[in-house]
Amino acid sequence: MEQIPILKLGNILLVSIQVEMHDQLALQLQDDLTIKLAKSQARGVLIDISALEIVDSFIGRSLAHIAGIARVMDATTVLVGMRPAVAITLVELGMTLTGIRTALNVEKGMELLRASMDEAEDFPSMS
Amino acid sequence: MEQIPILKLGNILLVSIQVEMHDQLALQLQDDLTIKLAKSQARGVLIDISALEIVDSFIGRSLAHIAGIARVMDATTVLVGMRPAVAITLVELGMTLTGIRTALNVEKGMELLRASMDEAEDFPSMS
Repeated sequence: MEQIPILKLGNILLVSIQVEMHDQLALQLQDDLTIKLAKSQARGVLIDISALEIVDSFIGRSLAHIAGIARVMDATTVLVGMRPAVAITLVELGMTLTGIRTALNVEKGMELLRASMDEAEDFPSMS
Repeated sequence: MEQIPILKLGNILLVSIQVEMHDQLALQLQDDLTIKLAKSQARGVLIDISALEIVDSFIGRSLAHIAGIARVMDATTVLVGMRPAVAITLVELGMTLTGIRTALNVEKGMELLRASMDEAEDFPSMS
């Protein structure tokens, strides 16, 4: 079965989406990521969509879902590698990807995640 | 056009292969990687094939080619995420991937690359 691999890099999970995200694949990715987040105790999720030429409202919603799941599992999601044409289309579709942070490329995304993790450590939770 | 993304992580280039590598795509990846190696001055290439269920002799040869190109451009290639079934098939095909270093997953591959870079720094070239 087709499956999007999730790569673990320290406490960050890297997902590079290269294939058209149909219904089943998006659900599978949600499941896989949830399991991997719990198992690896990762604090950040980096989703690279530089290979995608088209991001429709379904994919946009799926990404927002994934970010929502990650958030309740105490992980920050950063979306990287969005093509200019994709950005234009998303805004035209009225999708502003609220709740998802973005960065230009994987390297900048990593920096953003590390910075947000450091911040979280500076202000520990009351637990 | 279909294209395998190459992600830059510090001085390491990460390639996650998720689609069947046909002729044209393998050549494209070689070209892209050569250009990116020259531009980014990366010292390591990490190729993740955890999404591949089948690795035939053509893909094996392509990977060996890429590792060869990286080597003459002063970068080490590490292949990670090979499935057990793929490993069995490769050996049955008589392909031992000479010249390519392997690791179980991306994290271990990164460690291997970093270790080999540190080694290279300990013994600088005569230039």
